[in-house]
Amino acid sequence: MIIFGHKNPDTDAICSAIVYSHLKEDLGIKAVAKRIGELNEETKFVLKYFGVDAPEYIDNVAGESIILVDHNERTQTADGFEEAKVLEVIDHHRVANFNVSDPLYMRVEAVGCTSTILFDMYRENNIKPCKIMAGLMLSAIISDTLLFKSPTCTPKDVIAGKELAKIAGLDLKEYGLEMLKAGTNLSSKTEMELLNMDMKIFEVEDIRMSIAQVNSVNEDEMLERKEKLLVEMKNLMEKEKVNFVMFVITNILTNDSVGLVSGNNLDVVEKAFNEKINDNMIVLRKVVSRKKQVVPPLTDAIKNR
Amino acid sequence: MIIFGHKNPDTDAICSAIVYSHLKEDLGIKAVAKRIGELNEETKFVLKYFGVDAPEYIDNVAGESIILVDHNERTQTADGFEEAKVLEVIDHHRVANFNVSDPLYMRVEAVGCTSTILFDMYRENNIKPCKIMAGLMLSAIISDTLLFKSPTCTPKDVIAGKELAKIAGLDLKEYGLEMLKAGTNLSSKTEMELLNMDMKIFEVEDIRMSIAQVNSVNEDEMLERKEKLLVEMKNLMEKEKVNFVMFVITNILTNDSVGLVSGNNLDVVEKAFNEKINDNMIVLRKVVSRKKQVVPPLTDAIKNR
Repeated sequence: MIIFGHKNPDTDAICSAIVYSHLKEDLGIKAVAKRIGELNEETKFVLKYFGVDAPEYIDNVAGESIILVDHNERTQTADGFEEAKVLEVIDHHRVANFNVSDPLYMRVEAVGCTSTILFDMYRENNIKPCKIMAGLMLSAIISDTLLFKSPTCTPKDVIAGKELAKIAGLDLKEYGLEMLKAGTNLSSKTEMELLNMDMKIFEVEDIRMSIAQVNSVNEDEMLERKEKLLVEMKNLMEKEKVNFVMFVITNILTNDSVGLVSGNNLDVVEKAFNEKINDNMIVLRKVVSRKKQVVPPLTDAIKNR
Repeated sequence: MIIFGHKNPDTDAICSAIVYSHLKEDLGIKAVAKRIGELNEETKFVLKYFGVDAPEYIDNVAGESIILVDHNERTQTADGFEEAKVLEVIDHHRVANFNVSDPLYMRVEAVGCTSTILFDMYRENNIKPCKIMAGLMLSAIISDTLLFKSPTCTPKDVIAGKELAKIAGLDLKEYGLEMLKAGTNLSSKTEMELLNMDMKIFEVEDIRMSIAQVNSVNEDEMLERKEKLLVEMKNLMEKEKVNFVMFVITNILTNDSVGLVSGNNLDVVEKAFNEKINDNMIVLRKVVSRKKQVVPPLTDAIKNR
């Protein structure tokens, strides 16, 4: 039995896989955490901080018994999905493009982070997580909610975060900012690496779109690389056969974003955010959440063309 | 907020909607049970036995905030689904052809009955169901598991059923057989009504199939109506634009079934059950569960054509 998060994994995708495999072990079930993509800088910081090894990479899950965490959509999961036995899904996203032929255990909650659900599962089983597992769950919550500032954050995430910080013996804000800043250290990345770090494909009606996101403490640094980014966005568009690519640069200090866009059907982007695109750029004021503030307005704009 | 089960509702679809609306009320949330189809004889017996009114019929859920119980697939849910806000899904089936644009609460467990999950939710909220709600949940479990004899039945369903019988003050077997037999009283039904009583549409790759099921204590009674049934199966095929129709007659005393089949692509039916079709009939030994013993082999046979 293997457990893994989505492609282009973020801290929640990696930490929830590790934590859930530990919880399974506590319950007497053998499960191994895997990853289906490269670690980002933030997650590297987290695993190093807690002295935990990264899950092993797997490129095809055909024939495996699998548990999906932090995702369910076909475009975001592993190759070989159709030839795997899907045992469980633990997630906090919309459910779409997910098809299995057998009943399974599926637990999706509208909270800010998969690890918040896992912390509930610890409690339901009367198991207290160790310091390290608490630290990993805390890191996932801080990452997904941008230290509780994202509109995806719910009261449950805040309560879980505070309790986990206590168990882990950490100062929530101090550790949180250090961790988030570690994730913005992107100077060594190529433009294509930046685009792929946290890129997801979404399909709505006949439109297939690639939406990537990076955190930053200074978006101007990123915008200096705009021309090169636009070239690679064109390449990404061809490779992933999408109608358009949107690259969202989120400032974790001001909680505003700016989007770079390239491709076709860009009228739906302007309509979604009620904002003009200038020079391939669109201002996204107070937008920090792809899930709650980018995908739903785009979905609505496409459906109401 | 409205709560409803699938089209062509069975006892679980109706009782779980009623029970969950009561649990919501206990939790201080206003929710109204609805139905999107006619009651079958078994469910009528149950509601009369406990003196509970049938939920009101609704033909389109556009604009409503909705909770789906006992189903998730688009082909089995209400018209207007795309224009509704999907708040929750509580189900025990495979997940397929289900797409929403916002995160939701989705709880799917591989147990025999939705009411088994609802009984868990009562416990999680430290609420004891009243005698009547316990009776409705018990009835749903007996119906879905054929008194614990279906392969879909899990230890959790058995435990829940026994506890609920205690709360309801009922002799499980005596009440269960009486209830199941009430559902086999089909002499007054037309052939089209028989086909529609518990019919579900499934889509696998390019194949769309209609699979109906009835319970019986004497399948010969049903087979006397074979020629008329086959005529109506052809009509159903055209109306629902399916490749083929399969009508499964399950003997609740012997736990065997016989299938009537009509339409195209019937080679997948023979392949699925490793059995020849004779005169539009196929013998299904020890098959009682559409979910576990009919849909999965058909799905595999279609995928491996």
